[in-house]
Amino acid sequence: MDELILRPIAHIQTDFKEKFGVPRQSGRVKELQGWVVFEKEYAVREALRGLEEFSHIWLLWGFSLCKREGWSPTVRPPRLGGNKRMGVFATRSPCRPNPIGLSVVRLEGILEGKEGLMLAVSGADLVDGTPIYDIKPYLPFADVTENASGGFADSFKDYALEVELPEEWAEVLPAEKLPALLGILREDPRPAYQRDERSYGLSFAGFAVSFFVKENRVLRVTGVRREE
Amino acid sequence: MDELILRPIAHIQTDFKEKFGVPRQSGRVKELQGWVVFEKEYAVREALRGLEEFSHIWLLWGFSLCKREGWSPTVRPPRLGGNKRMGVFATRSPCRPNPIGLSVVRLEGILEGKEGLMLAVSGADLVDGTPIYDIKPYLPFADVTENASGGFADSFKDYALEVELPEEWAEVLPAEKLPALLGILREDPRPAYQRDERSYGLSFAGFAVSFFVKENRVLRVTGVRREE
Repeated sequence: MDELILRPIAHIQTDFKEKFGVPRQSGRVKELQGWVVFEKEYAVREALRGLEEFSHIWLLWGFSLCKREGWSPTVRPPRLGGNKRMGVFATRSPCRPNPIGLSVVRLEGILEGKEGLMLAVSGADLVDGTPIYDIKPYLPFADVTENASGGFADSFKDYALEVELPEEWAEVLPAEKLPALLGILREDPRPAYQRDERSYGLSFAGFAVSFFVKENRVLRVTGVRREE
Repeated sequence: MDELILRPIAHIQTDFKEKFGVPRQSGRVKELQGWVVFEKEYAVREALRGLEEFSHIWLLWGFSLCKREGWSPTVRPPRLGGNKRMGVFATRSPCRPNPIGLSVVRLEGILEGKEGLMLAVSGADLVDGTPIYDIKPYLPFADVTENASGGFADSFKDYALEVELPEEWAEVLPAEKLPALLGILREDPRPAYQRDERSYGLSFAGFAVSFFVKENRVLRVTGVRREE
């Protein structure tokens, strides 16, 4: 029956404890840092020989927060306002027959620390703890497709909100986390259906960030506090 | 334990009955045609709504010919001559902890024929019958990484043999299969370890093609006959 059982080779550590706020594709927020920590069995330095020559890598990972109970042929992509249905295979929706994700991230380095062998990466769109099933080098000669057309997704590739972050709240955050947070907020973390000015709370890097969006154009931060 | 069980959503039909001759990355031989035939359960036209707007798609598939009995941290990439070991995660080798493949192919069309619902694709590097676990749109804004460096793989991206195909043998093939066959032969199908002038036989589109390679530079076809 060609079933394939995948076992995690690693887990990623990121600043996202929950799905809300995670960019909707990899590479959208290049300042986001992550650490791919290998499982004991796969923490073999030799298995990475030559990988440092590549600037980018593919991660194949599991949509671990998406419960699979049957599947739906169509989904509502958030960037289409949540009211237009597209075929699940025409989207990168997490809720798909086989809940496997694909992300290209920048490889910043290979580390051997007290947690074992790990890769430092940036630009990942993954929740903390996501299981990683495969790592492949990004091969520009095969993976870059010239003149590819991106369908309906092309129309929102430049979508971004203007972000207002008052200094009093910016100061609460460690300075090195600020560029990534601004990137996340510009991406508009609101759910597809909610396009009103209600208040939202985002958890990032151990901080609770509250905000609202004015006229679907400007996102204003109304608070930043350390989570307990 | 985060195990993930994948079930095929489709199988691909290609002209390769065996691994020998399959290009070593997708897109290398753009003339190769294939058909992604959906399993009955997933043959739902709605699940593809919007897909026709995309020029390219990702296929996630299983290395069904690679038996997994343990894993090796290093492999010998054929393009490095088969005598240099690289880490398995620095390669696209089929023999990896989770034998899952990633290929970008051109989407030529969506068909509903007597075999059911299928996608016509080109540029696939897959053996006939390979199980497909996921189809995702190729998103240029996320998947095209500018200025990516391709490590040791960059050095063989332009590798190609010169092909001599005498007219008497070219005539045996259906004309529409000729460009793809020439592409396959240019890619040098020989195994990594064998760099001598011995005779090889390739099965493609129902034909047995024999050839040898002179001075690691020119591939000469010595016969084409229909397979029984």
